Amino acid sequence: TTRKPAGHLAPASFMWSHIARLAPQGLPRIPRALRGVYRSSLALKLGRLGGKMAFVAGAGIAAVGALGMTNGAQAEKKWPIMTRAEISKHKSKEAGVWVTYKEGVYDITEFVAQHPGGESRIMLAAGGAIDPFWSLYQQHLVENVLEILKQYRIGTLSAEEAAETADSSDPYSTDPKRHPALIVHKEKPFNAGTPPQLIPDNFTTPQELWYKRHHHPVPVVDPQTFRLKVEADSGVKGIRELDLSLDTLRKFPKHTVTTTLQCAGNRRAELNALGEKTQGLCWTTGAVSTATWGGVRLRDVLKAAGMDFESPSAKHIWFIGLDPPYDASIPIKKAIDKYGDVLLAYEMNGKDLPRDHGYPVRAIVPGHVAARQVKWVHKVVASQEESHSGWQRGVQYKGFSANIKSFKGVDPSKVASVQELPVQSAICDPPTNSTVSLDEGEVKVRGWAWSGGGRGIVRVDVTADEGKSWTTANLRKLKQEEGREWAWTLWEADLPIPAKDSFQICARAVDTSYNSQPGDVGPLWNLRGILNNSWHKITVKVDKD
Amino acid sequence: TTRKPAGHLAPASFMWSHIARLAPQGLPRIPRALRGVYRSSLALKLGRLGGKMAFVAGAGIAAVGALGMTNGAQAEKKWPIMTRAEISKHKSKEAGVWVTYKEGVYDITEFVAQHPGGESRIMLAAGGAIDPFWSLYQQHLVENVLEILKQYRIGTLSAEEAAETADSSDPYSTDPKRHPALIVHKEKPFNAGTPPQLIPDNFTTPQELWYKRHHHPVPVVDPQTFRLKVEADSGVKGIRELDLSLDTLRKFPKHTVTTTLQCAGNRRAELNALGEKTQGLCWTTGAVSTATWGGVRLRDVLKAAGMDFESPSAKHIWFIGLDPPYDASIPIKKAIDKYGDVLLAYEMNGKDLPRDHGYPVRAIVPGHVAARQVKWVHKVVASQEESHSGWQRGVQYKGFSANIKSFKGVDPSKVASVQELPVQSAICDPPTNSTVSLDEGEVKVRGWAWSGGGRGIVRVDVTADEGKSWTTANLRKLKQEEGREWAWTLWEADLPIPAKDSFQICARAVDTSYNSQPGDVGPLWNLRGILNNSWHKITVKVDKD
Repeated sequence: TTRKPAGHLAPASFMWSHIARLAPQGLPRIPRALRGVYRSSLALKLGRLGGKMAFVAGAGIAAVGALGMTNGAQAEKKWPIMTRAEISKHKSKEAGVWVTYKEGVYDITEFVAQHPGGESRIMLAAGGAIDPFWSLYQQHLVENVLEILKQYRIGTLSAEEAAETADSSDPYSTDPKRHPALIVHKEKPFNAGTPPQLIPDNFTTPQELWYKRHHHPVPVVDPQTFRLKVEADSGVKGIRELDLSLDTLRKFPKHTVTTTLQCAGNRRAELNALGEKTQGLCWTTGAVSTATWGGVRLRDVLKAAGMDFESPSAKHIWFIGLDPPYDASIPIKKAIDKYGDVLLAYEMNGKDLPRDHGYPVRAIVPGHVAARQVKWVHKVVASQEESHSGWQRGVQYKGFSANIKSFKGVDPSKVASVQELPVQSAICDPPTNSTVSLDEGEVKVRGWAWSGGGRGIVRVDVTADEGKSWTTANLRKLKQEEGREWAWTLWEADLPIPAKDSFQICARAVDTSYNSQPGDVGPLWNLRGILNNSWHKITVKVDKD
Repeated sequence: TTRKPAGHLAPASFMWSHIARLAPQGLPRIPRALRGVYRSSLALKLGRLGGKMAFVAGAGIAAVGALGMTNGAQAEKKWPIMTRAEISKHKSKEAGVWVTYKEGVYDITEFVAQHPGGESRIMLAAGGAIDPFWSLYQQHLVENVLEILKQYRIGTLSAEEAAETADSSDPYSTDPKRHPALIVHKEKPFNAGTPPQLIPDNFTTPQELWYKRHHHPVPVVDPQTFRLKVEADSGVKGIRELDLSLDTLRKFPKHTVTTTLQCAGNRRAELNALGEKTQGLCWTTGAVSTATWGGVRLRDVLKAAGMDFESPSAKHIWFIGLDPPYDASIPIKKAIDKYGDVLLAYEMNGKDLPRDHGYPVRAIVPGHVAARQVKWVHKVVASQEESHSGWQRGVQYKGFSANIKSFKGVDPSKVASVQELPVQSAICDPPTNSTVSLDEGEVKVRGWAWSGGGRGIVRVDVTADEGKSWTTANLRKLKQEEGREWAWTLWEADLPIPAKDSFQICARAVDTSYNSQPGDVGPLWNLRGILNNSWHKITVKVDKD
């Protein structure tokens, strides 16, 4: 097994695994020229650490222009008319893999194994539209890709399917559209995770692929009448009330920070798999994403409201959202810390916040659990107490011992509210239960690691032999200051494939406080199913032929 | 098994385990009156959370006065003259348990099992002088205790044994005397741990029992000529050199902080027990202690030297000790943090620093590894780089992966220096391999827990059935601000005794970032043998008769 000392590789020397996958062997139907297109657009992407989605070259855009013609020519054939309901039944190799692109319906069953981006990725679109994936991975928008696709055409989508009507009686009818790649755990309120194997593709997660964790319908906010109020409750002195329009808010100095947000319930599925069910949605490893946020520092707003930072009379700052409302609070020390980077954010990855992520203003509290980073914030309250909401003082975001099997008689005020999160990591690729070929000798393992409180990742160790030997992964991280390492670390490692029918891969991360992930999930079981940061373990099958 | 929700008990309701042990059953030779003395001095002690050693009542002091007479009367008998070498051979039940008190020699073999403070504690003095233990546990200094002792007299210590000569050719000859209860891992330089079972007796550890971890002889410092220099290296601008006498240093505002210090090598013995030896002294769980330190804030001194806190040009602050020299550094963010409580300390538990703990000035860096809390500091340097010393940049205080079996070819600059420490705990009582009686039904388990970075302990879970069930311990802690919980948490829990020949007790702590200790020690093995924070596990034998 290859063992490398820990270290931070420069982005240029970091070879992402799909480069290896782009090797031409076994891809007979993809012309050599097309392979070049894939390669060069990926090379472009590699050059943009922390960059955004639009990595397609001018050539790609030109190809999109040419596309209408191609499709127009195809439409002349009389294809059978098909419905989305019918198409959605075809999402496995057994039932056939159908996708739509614009109005065309395609049976790509035969192509799936040849997809240069990997079988598991193209299967994310099975039974539905491929368009939203291609808008994320724009290397597809070139003529040669469409040439391949048209060989698989089997039908045309019914015209009515395109039109969508909102049901005005449903409070969720005004929710925004979401990307079909998201792994939906609940439709209303909308709760969905990022597909794990797409995570390592982008240092900052595109907003379409960001996990969404809502407690209510998404508020509809008029930016003209929106006001952000800053006030104090009765116990706190020296705060002037503020009533800020969006324009006024934007006049404060702008500050940006790149930070990873994670739901306390991430990886709950593994706790449930122990046999005793927990309370909450069955998140796998996708309740985590990273963005660059822009906005005003909370401390600047509090200073404008007259807060005395030397001896603040407030002990907590509450954030109150416009959804029915959701509210939560953070300790004053974090709120006013010059190095704490707490924002009232109005931008995500350089654009106005999307509605799903708190438009027009949300709290960003780097290093803390996402539950405190309230969306659609319209009120900030300085208080001597923690927020009174159930999400703060109830059992929802508190960590209980494994010995608590029922909340009967339990006093949640005795248990600390979750604020900073513990060290965490997950394996994204290969997906669990996927198959690797013994011939390849090694499997490239990719994932992410992160810790709360601004503690950076110093090491990720990975094992394919249940800890008898460890391989230290190569790390890819932003250069952030010590104690302000808010963004995750992406990592990859090559592990030898054992000559067995299947094997387990485990990853464990270590942070700058030298906390490391506990090995067993069992002792981390808790009735709310939160805070699972045990080693991430996946099973991989081996094809020995 | 008794299960209690986590919570912080007020000191008054916290029943320490030796209260239970003072129950009169099985102590035939201790008069009822004496039991009362024990009980009331312990009650006094319980009333003094975080207090110092001197908990003996006036009555006790009076009894010390009466003592000379008792001993004087005894000296009239012609006891055989004995040497320390001879006495030191008698420290087991098999060889007899001998102790000295002043010039008297006593065979207390028969008394050991009846000791109200527990057999394991009195055995700490076996083969040596009991005087230094009684000066710590002054409830012994009453007439009735001496009445018991005199029944066991067997000899008189030779007069010469009292005289001690310093060997001037030995650089360690000027080292201070240490308390014999310390568990010595190395004499020169002196390295010794606190006996684990004494730890929970005192929230702040008496300086005699503090663990000592030296790299060199203890410097001999003249307080009149001592100067503390503050300077910058060539890369750092805006710092005026300071040259401070002890008197000038004391003119800065005085600040006190109660904090726990732990050696990175604490619990190395468990790593060595895995079979692959690590590099370093074989510390068990005693390389940890707590004190209240008084001194000046480092930030006040740096401000006096002209440092700009808004955008400091320095990135690290070095502390240089007077021992040959030892030096180490901490990041600037911690050094100047208003809430970081970094001190240049001149007092420990209300008195001048003892020589073993850095007289006249040491660094106190709460929440960080003790290795950065340099003793005998005579120079503070603002720099853009970490200290160049081997203890900072070499392999000594860096955490390596278990896959590093040799330092050949390893570049330590790729690995983060240990600063904050991870969440930790240990079981102090019962001692490992001790015996409990099945009749008692339950065993009271006591210990400490702590985490680095000001993260408090939110829960300690203890198991006697290998994690099938967990009992949440009662916690005793100082009221310290959120994020500034520098002092440890003492804890206790009652566990059912299983009807087996022996069983294992495991403890795991959870801190405010919800990091918890990893279960297995194996993956924490590292060539330097540091940072072992796996669950603490002890074996207890069961007497079923």
